[in-house]
Amino acid sequence: MRTASIRLGARVVGACIGVFTPFAVGGADDNASPVFGIRLPAGYREWQMISVAHEAGSLNDIRAVLGNDIAIQAYRDGTRPFPDGAIIARLAWEYVPSPENNAIFGQIQSFVPGSPTNVQFSVKDSKKYAETGGWGYGQFEHGKANASEDLMKTCAPCHAREAKNNDFVFTHYAP
Amino acid sequence: MRTASIRLGARVVGACIGVFTPFAVGGADDNASPVFGIRLPAGYREWQMISVAHEAGSLNDIRAVLGNDIAIQAYRDGTRPFPDGAIIARLAWEYVPSPENNAIFGQIQSFVPGSPTNVQFSVKDSKKYAETGGWGYGQFEHGKANASEDLMKTCAPCHAREAKNNDFVFTHYAP
Repeated sequence: MRTASIRLGARVVGACIGVFTPFAVGGADDNASPVFGIRLPAGYREWQMISVAHEAGSLNDIRAVLGNDIAIQAYRDGTRPFPDGAIIARLAWEYVPSPENNAIFGQIQSFVPGSPTNVQFSVKDSKKYAETGGWGYGQFEHGKANASEDLMKTCAPCHAREAKNNDFVFTHYAP
Repeated sequence: MRTASIRLGARVVGACIGVFTPFAVGGADDNASPVFGIRLPAGYREWQMISVAHEAGSLNDIRAVLGNDIAIQAYRDGTRPFPDGAIIARLAWEYVPSPENNAIFGQIQSFVPGSPTNVQFSVKDSKKYAETGGWGYGQFEHGKANASEDLMKTCAPCHAREAKNNDFVFTHYAP
C-alpha cells in the first residue's frame, strides 16, 4: 500500500528522480508497464491479503495489499530479501462513506471502497531488476498499463529511501 | 466490515434488541461464541479478500473482510441467498498513522493497521440459524471467543434492518 505514497512522495521530493538511472525492460507488449515491462499478473485478485490502508490527502483512497504465494510465504516466514518470483499487488479504490453503514451510526464514520483507482505491482526478480534493488514496478488502471515512464521511474528511488531493512518493501503484514 | 458497525448501531439504537428472540445453539465448547456456538474457523487468515473499510468514531479501526471459498464464489457469481457453508470473516485492527509513509508525505495522511482488535464471523446455515435469517455470528479477540451473550444478540437484529435484499450481508465485493 506504500507504493502510491512513494510515487507521490517522489513527485513532491524531486530529488528522487535525480538519483534514478533510467533503463528499459521489455516494452514490446503494449499492455506492459514501461521501464520494467510488468504485465498484469493473472488471478491477482484471488491472492491472499497482506494488509490494508487508507491514504488520505490528494490520494484519498482505501487499499488492500495482496501477495502471490511466494510473497505471502516470505511475509509469514519473515524471509528477507523476498525470493525471486514474489509479487505484491496493491489495489486501491476511492475512499467513500457508506450510506448503509452510516444510517446505523447516525453519522458519517464508515468508509468503504468506491470505484477502483489503480492497481500497482512490485515484482521481485533479483537479476532482471538488479538496478532497482531487485524489484520491478507496474501500475494498471482498469486492466491497462499506465504508459508513463516518468511515473514508473519514481517508484524504485523512493522504495530505496526507507525500506532497505525490509528489502525495499514498505507494507507490513497485518496479523 | 459491517458487523461491528451494526453491533454498535444496535447498542445505540436500542430498538434492535427489542425485536430479538434469544435462543442458544451449542455453547459447550468454551471457545465457541455464545448464542450461535461459532468456533474460530481454521485458516481464515488465508481466505480471499471481499473488501476493506475504515470505521472512524468510537471504533476507529481499519478492517478487511475475507470469505471462505463458498462465500467468495457467491460474491463473484452474485448468488443470493448465500449457500449454506458460506463464512464471512471481518478482521479489524487499530487505525494508526504510518510514520514510514508519512515521512514521505511530510504530513500525517497514511493510515495502516495497528494492533488487532477483534475478528468477527458470519456463518451461513439456513437450518441451524433459521431464527436469525440463516446466519450465525461470532466475535473473537486474540483467538478467544467473546463470551458476551448480549453482544451476540445485537448482531442479527441489525443485519436484518437494512440488508434484506442482500441476504442480511452488508459488505459489498470490492473489484
